[in-house]
Amino acid sequence: MSQANIEDNEVDIVIAALHSDLTSFMIEWKPVFSRFHLIIVKDPDLSEELQIPEGFNLDVYTKSDIDGVVGSSSSIVFSGYSCRYFGYLISQKKYIISVDDDCIPARDSSGSLVDIIAQHADNLTTPATPFFFNTLYDPYRKGADFVRGYPFSLRSGVTCALSCGLWLNLADYDAPTQALKPEQRNTRYVDAVLTVPARAMMPVSGINIAFNRELVGPALIPALKLAGEGKLRWETVEDIWSGMCVKVICDHLGLGVKSGLPYVWRNERGNAIDSLKKEWEGMKLMEEVVPFFQSVRLPQSAIKAEDCVVEMAKTVKEQLGQSDPMFARAAEAMVEWVKLWKAVRSRELST
Amino acid sequence: MSQANIEDNEVDIVIAALHSDLTSFMIEWKPVFSRFHLIIVKDPDLSEELQIPEGFNLDVYTKSDIDGVVGSSSSIVFSGYSCRYFGYLISQKKYIISVDDDCIPARDSSGSLVDIIAQHADNLTTPATPFFFNTLYDPYRKGADFVRGYPFSLRSGVTCALSCGLWLNLADYDAPTQALKPEQRNTRYVDAVLTVPARAMMPVSGINIAFNRELVGPALIPALKLAGEGKLRWETVEDIWSGMCVKVICDHLGLGVKSGLPYVWRNERGNAIDSLKKEWEGMKLMEEVVPFFQSVRLPQSAIKAEDCVVEMAKTVKEQLGQSDPMFARAAEAMVEWVKLWKAVRSRELST
Repeated sequence: MSQANIEDNEVDIVIAALHSDLTSFMIEWKPVFSRFHLIIVKDPDLSEELQIPEGFNLDVYTKSDIDGVVGSSSSIVFSGYSCRYFGYLISQKKYIISVDDDCIPARDSSGSLVDIIAQHADNLTTPATPFFFNTLYDPYRKGADFVRGYPFSLRSGVTCALSCGLWLNLADYDAPTQALKPEQRNTRYVDAVLTVPARAMMPVSGINIAFNRELVGPALIPALKLAGEGKLRWETVEDIWSGMCVKVICDHLGLGVKSGLPYVWRNERGNAIDSLKKEWEGMKLMEEVVPFFQSVRLPQSAIKAEDCVVEMAKTVKEQLGQSDPMFARAAEAMVEWVKLWKAVRSRELST
Repeated sequence: MSQANIEDNEVDIVIAALHSDLTSFMIEWKPVFSRFHLIIVKDPDLSEELQIPEGFNLDVYTKSDIDGVVGSSSSIVFSGYSCRYFGYLISQKKYIISVDDDCIPARDSSGSLVDIIAQHADNLTTPATPFFFNTLYDPYRKGADFVRGYPFSLRSGVTCALSCGLWLNLADYDAPTQALKPEQRNTRYVDAVLTVPARAMMPVSGINIAFNRELVGPALIPALKLAGEGKLRWETVEDIWSGMCVKVICDHLGLGVKSGLPYVWRNERGNAIDSLKKEWEGMKLMEEVVPFFQSVRLPQSAIKAEDCVVEMAKTVKEQLGQSDPMFARAAEAMVEWVKLWKAVRSRELST
């Protein structure tokens, strides 16, 4: 693991502040975060002042900043976990790393603190191999390689655009699973990174992710907002939806998605049983969402993530829009998001 | 890990004897193998008598047994690593587990001996999930589950037909990789099993595998024999070829393939540099083989592995047969194999 391929100033760490007191969170992450620029986006629903310790290079954005950029006419709601997307929107860095504010650094099997920046950087700067599965996991890792039978023509791989990290202690389960197994904790540290094969769909969790903003930034969108969505991860599916958008777009553009290391340590928060009523809605939607993303194909003319999102929004509206108004709203948000993304970029150019 | 779902008498352990002295191999495996029936197939090219210690329940098959069943007219060659397929052919058990004779039991991260039978049995008797990727690996494992966003309708999974284990110490690299990195040893124990997603192709290694013989036995075929094939793993691709056949067939029939645990400890054998001249042939073939298997589709009428193999043989002959006579011979061997498989089964019924 090294950051040889990424300069410190190519990274923005984006934190969604759903709680006002970030003191212990920031202190825990200080050894990992202190060299990098942080974007902290305060949940617009949060009224208390944020408490952030000294010693970081950071910018804080609040409701008034969001309103200033987005305006009031937007169909996009930046509240709750979705506020982090505002950070993705205004970042000007090549890479974004984002972690939930209820997570602290994990330790690996040898007891060392996991540097999520270094590992995500490694994942994003070494190639991905979506077109053939390597049974020994990441072939670019020290001590590993491509196994016998792996075609040489595929060994150079493709650019990795998205790196999905995992969670020790409280895993990212939905409310019913959490309610059924309240004592379950993830204690297994699986020392591996793998490329999720092309055309295989997966549930991307927003808890601990990193991505190449220049390549796929426009595809991470707070589009699918549940009616009963609250301030707990298991009440949201916005990351799952945008994760499937990104995966389809990566498959289309010949980019890779990795999953595995790095882990974060995730602390308990909230009562799963209280969330059950709300969560069923999101889970029912998945039964339609997954087959949709498995079958959607983008036109050859779509050669940038922005184009892909616009094309996908059309298909969402056509194929899913009738079955639930939430999907129609998601399609609108996707179109709106691309406009917003382009507007922010053109403002950057003119300043 | 448990073998609750498999009876001891449902398993055949098939060993290809490429070396006459199996004493230390058998002694190392005794704690794991002693409860099960073993089929040892002696490489027909091997002239020395086999040395096998006492204390096992086993049957040994030699060239004369092979000739007796297969006859002289066959286009299938059972020499070298391919002799194990004779064991697959004559087994009457539901599950087959096969390990190379240069492997001994591995130890897991806590230092315990790995019971490959128990782990392969677990892999084969718990469902596989090829239609959506679970980021926390095997959701049926103790302490794990399906993550948020995983559709409930896909959580019952499908039957697992093939379990591909891995290797510590000497990994299964091809000769050039081995020659370039002669000191490289795999020391990383990745504590995970995952389902390889549907439509993703992979290089199946024959070193350490298990499968449901009733479901996919006819698809494991010694079909692709290289002209310069020798007695070293990196000089062969027969397992890679039949692995891709099985994967395509599993995808077609709605069955699953898992990869990961259990590990075996693989010892050094042979000189990679000596093999380089031969091996390039197999590697060049992969450049055609992989795109072929990625695109081949089977007709809906093929509902058993036997049907699938016959259909695939037709397509191999049509699409690859012209480019290299080895492919045409592989197609012939596939057709011949299904005839042989059926003949052995009908003989079983009549006795």
